[in-house]
Order: sequence, then structure tokens, then C-alpha cells
Amino acid sequence: MPFETTTQVRFAHIDAAGIVFYPRYFEMLNAAVEDWCAQALGQDFRTLHLHHRIGVPTVKLDVEFVSPSELGDVLTISISPREVGRSSCHLHVVFSGDDRVRLQANVVLVCMDLQTRRATPWPQDMRSSILEGIVHAV
Amino acid sequence: MPFETTTQVRFAHIDAAGIVFYPRYFEMLNAAVEDWCAQALGQDFRTLHLHHRIGVPTVKLDVEFVSPSELGDVLTISISPREVGRSSCHLHVVFSGDDRVRLQANVVLVCMDLQTRRATPWPQDMRSSILEGIVHAV
Amino acid sequence: MPFETTTQVRFAHIDAAGIVFYPRYFEMLNAAVEDWCAQALGQDFRTLHLHHRIGVPTVKLDVEFVSPSELGDVLTISISPREVGRSSCHLHVVFSGDDRVRLQANVVLVCMDLQTRRATPWPQDMRSSILEGIVHAV
Amino acid sequence: MPFETTTQVRFAHIDAAGIVFYPRYFEMLNAAVEDWCAQALGQDFRTLHLHHRIGVPTVKLDVEFVSPSELGDVLTISISPREVGRSSCHLHVVFSGDDRVRLQANVVLVCMDLQTRRATPWPQDMRSSILEGIVHAV
Repeated sequence: MPFETTTQVRFAHIDAAGIVFYPRYFEMLNAAVEDWCAQALGQDFRTLHLHHRIGVPTVKLDVEFVSPSELGDVLTISISPREVGRSSCHLHVVFSGDDRVRLQANVVLVCMDLQTRRATPWPQDMRSSILEGIVHAV
Repeated sequence: MPFETTTQVRFAHIDAAGIVFYPRYFEMLNAAVEDWCAQALGQDFRTLHLHHRIGVPTVKLDVEFVSPSELGDVLTISISPREVGRSSCHLHVVFSGDDRVRLQANVVLVCMDLQTRRATPWPQDMRSSILEGIVHAV
Repeated sequence: MPFETTTQVRFAHIDAAGIVFYPRYFEMLNAAVEDWCAQALGQDFRTLHLHHRIGVPTVKLDVEFVSPSELGDVLTISISPREVGRSSCHLHVVFSGDDRVRLQANVVLVCMDLQTRRATPWPQDMRSSILEGIVHAV
Repeated sequence: MPFETTTQVRFAHIDAAGIVFYPRYFEMLNAAVEDWCAQALGQDFRTLHLHHRIGVPTVKLDVEFVSPSELGDVLTISISPREVGRSSCHLHVVFSGDDRVRLQANVVLVCMDLQTRRATPWPQDMRSSILEGIVHAV
């Protein structure tokens, strides 16, 4: 079972054509990654950033925008970890709603030391939780 | 009792100083107005925009940013209608969290015909619901 | 003469009604304040933030959205300082284009120490430049 | 020679780690595509949307974030069309500054009829201009 969270398409997300402006999907995706960190990895972004001084920037992204989303749509965002490296993590992400896929993406995150702005190994407990997510997704 | 909804401060809202970048508060405010329309006035934005072809742009705003908000803060947004005109509506808005006011605002919305982009009288049922909110807030 | 800078209404600024979504005006305003700091006060935001460890958050704002702006509009943003305190500064701001005022605002900025997140006196040279702007605006 | 335009990293683009929050890159990219349409294809977005009732949504995107960008950085965005189909167009995009690549992306746009929200063939003059860009890029 992948991790799932939901979001609603707001007026702020919609463009002149009446559909989600694609950079807004990435704001939603980032919030979903926050939820995943907090709920599946046990590390909320506040603790991660302010206490552990770790960030998880996105270093690679490929996305296919399969079908448009409109004002008021409730979207389910599913996140499945696929691989975990020393300091990186590959996620497969699907946005869907009303049985229609809206977008699917492959995302590579990296665990970054906020002081040096360099990649740093995942804390052991986060790494274990990511690995658990990979096993469960199979 | 004012209308209340909650929101969470996300990484996307935070600036380089670690606090909410103020334009992001207005995105949150706009989403709260959507919730108020849907839940207190019985008119979700989708129906309002796509079926009734009505928008509710903000025409006036005064805001005081009382104290900063940080990553992860859960904020309560309260909306109290204060006055309703033929096609306008005055709201008093307070963002708070952990017993601290974050911002307070006075907002004037106007009911706009999306075709002509001119002010148009509130639909009767919306006007009644706004009035009810004013009475209950006293 | 007030300080002036220009900006263009982009697709990212436009809402489903085809006009600028008002939180986007504040992103434009913030960029205009950056230009004003760099060009009129001789302090670009990078130096201000990274070297002097000073920020200039907005603490108060009143805005009237006079007329809407559309995709492609080129807007002139004028900034007139009106008052300067020990650590605050009052600005009058007008957005206009094609001889039409789009919005006018009064903005209070505060000089903030990024370490302590408290108000701190303006650096002497910034204060002098703001004062000069007030005199010239008369 | 690819098409080039420049942009500046603003306070609004920066995250808590002091670097560009990646969804903001896509706002910059979208503005660069607007410039490319206006300057290289002779079709500004306003005319395209309001008169021809055509939009150019992004349907596919792969991006590598090569190195971070900071407040005040001036970035050059280069756009090279690589392929043009009946109603699609492949672009190669590079953001760079100070001789460092910040991101590189492959983007697929589609020419969309705003009324029906379906793909529609490129207008002949736009198609010719895209083709010219492909030839010149070689």
C-alpha cells in the first residue's frame, strides 16, 4: 500500500483556462511529501529543518500531466518509495481523483545538510522507514 | 460564533527568514473564504464560478501582521461578516494559533458577474446566509 | 518624484476570471520593494539578508484594488516613502497601467534583525536614503 | 542559437534553506515560454489566449536540478525547440547563471483549443516559427 494523502483544488491553483496551473501541482506535491515525512517516516518538516538541520530538496523530476484538474476537485496523492540510497530516495507519485489519473511522477529527493548544503546520509530511523515503505509497496 | 477553518503552515509558505511570506497568507485567506462560501453560505466556488458565473473578488483589504508564523504551525482562521450591501460584503478575519493572533484583517468582497466583470447583487440565498452570519456574530 | 519600476502581468498571475489574483500583486509589490531597496537605498536584498542579516517584513498593509489587470498588461509600480521611524517605514504604493490605477496601498515595513526576529534601527545610510526619498516626494 | 531570456531570483522564490523553491522555477519557466512565444513565434500569450482561444499547456516534463540558485542571482533561460508535431512541441530548456547550470529540462507543450480543451493543430505561422527555431538550433 502506498502512502496516501488528499488535497483540494483551490481557486489559487487554477489558471485562466480553468485548470490547475502546473507549478501549483508541485506545491501540492511538496505538501504531500511533508505529510509522508511526518506520517510515514515519523519526521515532520519542522523538526527535520529546525532541529536536525536537514532538508530534502528535489533533485530530479519527471512528470506526465495525464488529465486536467478543475476548481474543487478532491485529489488523492499517493507516494510509493522505490529506491533508497545513502542520501537519496526515489519516489513514484500519482495524483488521481474521480477514478482518473491527473499526473504521475518520478521524483528523486536528496537528504541535505542545511549548513553545508551538501548531501548527507539519511538518519538511520528515516532510512529504515523508507525501506519499510519500499517493502510494503511491493 | 464566527466561521472557523484551519490550515497548516507548509514549506511552500515560508521565506528565507523562516516565517510565512505574507503573500502566502492571502492564498490561505482566499482558501478560507472558499470554505466559508461552501460551508456557511452553501455555495462552493465551483458552482459559483462555473454555474452561476459569479466571482467574489477582494476590492479592499487592511491587514495587520501581529506575530509571525513558522513551518508546521496549525492556524485557525476565523471569518466574521460585519456588513452586507447590495453587492458587497465586509469581513473581519483573524488568523491565530497557540493562543497568539498572527494577523487580523478587514476585507471587502464584491459579488461580480464574470461575464461583464461588474458588480451584481448577491443571489438572495447567499445574502440571507451572510446576514445570518452577521446576526450570529453579535 | 517617487521611485518607479515596471512589471508585466504573466500567466502565473491570472485567475480563472482572467484577471490578476490579488495575492500575486503582493509578490509583484515585494519585488518592487526589492528594486527600491537596491536602486533607491543602495542595499540589495541579498546583501541585506546574507551580510547585514536584516530583513524588511511588512507589518501593516491597506490596499484598494481599483481596477483589474489582465494577461500581458505592463504595470508601473511607484513607491513613495512617507515616514521613517527608528525601525519602521511607511510607503505609499500605486500600481498603474494605460493611465488607469490598478491598486493603491499604504505599507508599513519594519527593519528586522534576522537573528533575534526583533525590530532593529535602520542602518544609518538606509535611513538617510529613505529620508531623501521623503523630501523628494514632496 | 537558442532563444534566451533572463530573470532574477526574488525573495518570493526563496525557501527556508535560502535557495529557490523548485515550484518557483516552473513559474519562471512559464514566463520564459511566454517570452519565447511573443518574441520567437510572434504570438504573445494575451493574443493567443484571448483572440485565438489557444493555450499551450505543459503535458510532460523532465527536469534535473543541477545546482541551487540564491537570492539576487540573475539567471539566463535558454529555450531550444527540438521537435514539432501536429499539435505538440518538444523544448530543451537550460537555466544558468555565473557559468553554472542550475537546471536542465525537457518540456512537451501541446497546442490546446481553450473551448474544447483538446489538442488542436498549431496555427501555420507558429508552426513555421517553431520549425525555424529547430533548424537554427542545429
